Amino acid sequence: MLEQLKEDVCRANQEIERSELVVLTWGNVSGFDPKQKLMVIKPSGMDCKQMEPEFMIVVDLRGSVVEGDFRPSSDTPTHIELYKAWDDVMSIVHTHSDYATMFAQAQRSIPCLGTTHADFFKGSVAVTRSLSREEVKEGYEKNTGKVIAETFQKRDHLSVPAVLVSGHGPFTWGKTTDEAVKASIALEKIAKMAYGTLVLSPEAPNLPDHVFKKHFMRKHGPKAYYGQGGEGKND
Amino acid sequence: MLEQLKEDVCRANQEIERSELVVLTWGNVSGFDPKQKLMVIKPSGMDCKQMEPEFMIVVDLRGSVVEGDFRPSSDTPTHIELYKAWDDVMSIVHTHSDYATMFAQAQRSIPCLGTTHADFFKGSVAVTRSLSREEVKEGYEKNTGKVIAETFQKRDHLSVPAVLVSGHGPFTWGKTTDEAVKASIALEKIAKMAYGTLVLSPEAPNLPDHVFKKHFMRKHGPKAYYGQGGEGKND
Amino acid sequence: MLEQLKEDVCRANQEIERSELVVLTWGNVSGFDPKQKLMVIKPSGMDCKQMEPEFMIVVDLRGSVVEGDFRPSSDTPTHIELYKAWDDVMSIVHTHSDYATMFAQAQRSIPCLGTTHADFFKGSVAVTRSLSREEVKEGYEKNTGKVIAETFQKRDHLSVPAVLVSGHGPFTWGKTTDEAVKASIALEKIAKMAYGTLVLSPEAPNLPDHVFKKHFMRKHGPKAYYGQGGEGKND
Amino acid sequence: MLEQLKEDVCRANQEIERSELVVLTWGNVSGFDPKQKLMVIKPSGMDCKQMEPEFMIVVDLRGSVVEGDFRPSSDTPTHIELYKAWDDVMSIVHTHSDYATMFAQAQRSIPCLGTTHADFFKGSVAVTRSLSREEVKEGYEKNTGKVIAETFQKRDHLSVPAVLVSGHGPFTWGKTTDEAVKASIALEKIAKMAYGTLVLSPEAPNLPDHVFKKHFMRKHGPKAYYGQGGEGKND
Repeated sequence: MLEQLKEDVCRANQEIERSELVVLTWGNVSGFDPKQKLMVIKPSGMDCKQMEPEFMIVVDLRGSVVEGDFRPSSDTPTHIELYKAWDDVMSIVHTHSDYATMFAQAQRSIPCLGTTHADFFKGSVAVTRSLSREEVKEGYEKNTGKVIAETFQKRDHLSVPAVLVSGHGPFTWGKTTDEAVKASIALEKIAKMAYGTLVLSPEAPNLPDHVFKKHFMRKHGPKAYYGQGGEGKND
Repeated sequence: MLEQLKEDVCRANQEIERSELVVLTWGNVSGFDPKQKLMVIKPSGMDCKQMEPEFMIVVDLRGSVVEGDFRPSSDTPTHIELYKAWDDVMSIVHTHSDYATMFAQAQRSIPCLGTTHADFFKGSVAVTRSLSREEVKEGYEKNTGKVIAETFQKRDHLSVPAVLVSGHGPFTWGKTTDEAVKASIALEKIAKMAYGTLVLSPEAPNLPDHVFKKHFMRKHGPKAYYGQGGEGKND
Repeated sequence: MLEQLKEDVCRANQEIERSELVVLTWGNVSGFDPKQKLMVIKPSGMDCKQMEPEFMIVVDLRGSVVEGDFRPSSDTPTHIELYKAWDDVMSIVHTHSDYATMFAQAQRSIPCLGTTHADFFKGSVAVTRSLSREEVKEGYEKNTGKVIAETFQKRDHLSVPAVLVSGHGPFTWGKTTDEAVKASIALEKIAKMAYGTLVLSPEAPNLPDHVFKKHFMRKHGPKAYYGQGGEGKND
Repeated sequence: MLEQLKEDVCRANQEIERSELVVLTWGNVSGFDPKQKLMVIKPSGMDCKQMEPEFMIVVDLRGSVVEGDFRPSSDTPTHIELYKAWDDVMSIVHTHSDYATMFAQAQRSIPCLGTTHADFFKGSVAVTRSLSREEVKEGYEKNTGKVIAETFQKRDHLSVPAVLVSGHGPFTWGKTTDEAVKASIALEKIAKMAYGTLVLSPEAPNLPDHVFKKHFMRKHGPKAYYGQGGEGKND
């Protein structure tokens, strides 16, 4: 079942390793099928390099394994919470990429310091609040998903398809596995650039609002003219 | 038409990706044919890795597509302004390379701190002023070109074939695609070195003027003796 | 003799080079056979890239060569002291990996700033005290082993399978060569992340205790549910 | 003539490119034949990647080309001065490697902060003084060699086979091309480690003298026991 999605999710798990966002087993990608309300995710504790489509696990929204020979990623409840919260997201990526994780550990959001950032993320990439002792005890991974959703209560999660979980690392998402992986690659790059910018100029100003909006809208707005798609598309 | 130039521009787009100056679609190279007054440029939103000569777009100096199956790079008007401003430039490269972009975002020019810099750039690599709200609205990409040209009103653009667009990233240029690509590679390296130098010694002095001139002139002056070319040539 | 162990140790020596933890000859891996009380270790001053299983040296716990054509690693007495101190350790890795060595040279322990750290190391990775003049004279490499063991007098060496030797570099260990190598890879990554975190926020807080314990225990505790092993296993 | 030396010098020029110490044409290696008092060096302005043994240039100690189809490296007079000053040096390497160049530009010597440094360099790696206006005018490259030799008037150039030319970059040397290249690789690594150490602890102490001497002597002293050579040898 869901053979195409398994292939996409498998390839995405390999891609985050090839893009040097992941070493060892420190990352996972899932994909969601909205018709069957089933999620495909990487097995737990397995190297991204070794992925094969048939290793992928199919899980329902209660977290029960529907198909697959392995235990699903231990972060499965986090992914589930996000698919439940956002019905327009079809893929989620989690990594511990170097610079994004530095910001997560420093508990600093990534400010929008340039057009590279503005091309992908409409405003700063936020850090979540820390989970309370009770939340960790009650359901660590599930509540990690809930605190991410909470961070976006007043923000559009598709305009800023990335978050830093406090003291942990980044999650990104998109309408396809490809979009979600690209958001992870972009996030790591803009995190590295922001890091260096803040070292050079600790008080570096945010990108002026009129430039910021221009960049975001030329790629993502209704009259987008970046890329080869029709208006409003960007591929 | 312009088959040789298409090949050169295609290879240059691949080269900036191989040299790790570009990830995803974050860069573009163009070449100019001075006889026909036509520019060849990369399609918009396409991975540099996937380039083929026949994908290149031919554009005239008003920005109209003369040949090609794709939409040209969204930065096309910036390239056009620079070819109009400088009739001795035949290729332009734009990237979001890490360290050059950090300086652009920090709105700091790259000072000439050593001979590596002096071998390529006669003096600091400047940051442009920010575009006004009106300039962004009236024509963002075109005015980006104009503000670059403005930055060189009192400087020789062939002695310093690079600029940092404020809050955005670097552009470089040259008399050939090869020269323009090398300027991008050199710029990223000297930006990284300047970054580290300023971390080690925030008040690091500029290279003494007599050493600076010596290095620049031994490679680019009328009696240049670096490389295998005749006097004044450097290849 | 010990052919399987020689292969494992050889492959581990190659792996630390491939993982960019080692250049030139700056690293060594050993494995221990608890039945015969013999250690297999890399020859001294040899590139990790050039390793072959038959180059490995077999050494007893007094440091005498039992089999092999080369002189064993000059760090052999350090490895021996650790196998003597800890009878549950079967492999030791020593590298001069960049960021772990920076902390060793700065004589700073690596604080637990995030879940990436907590997944591998239960608490900060300590720096040893410096060896005295007498200890260096009496037996530099042997006393390096003793000072590592001393550092763990009040800590569990399997919960934090890594140490920074003051002014020198990291050692890691495990129950298999594979575990010991993974600890070196993880150590270098968490050192890099801690470095950047401290640059961004010099007063960055340690990971809250309740998150820290959760992460460590979900992977290493009696009810571990990370990975594909049974309870308490993690592979 | 000197076919073996040409091969060694060619391979060494390739090796500094492969080891990521050099981009474009920013480096050169020479070798010296003490019987014929002739030097073999890379051609000027040529990519290290493209080297072939037959491209190498043979130059005498007055700087005249004895054999070869290309112009020798523009740094030839620097190499010559060093062979004239030091009759036990048979190979010289010049690069603009990132971190060593940062220290050269910051005009800071690289302090001995750890055993990685002590294994290769007996004490700090010095920065030369700047050349005067007259010295640059009279003979820039020759006087660069003289100021390096001057820096070692009271130090042993074989115990510290590296120097940072102020505002320029590193030179290293050795009794063979292989030794000189390894000194460049080691220099870049210890420069990177020193950089990070000083960021973490601006007042980081030098390696204690008794550890420092131990490390240097176990590898280079008359009773050296590192590596596979006889006493006092290290290979």
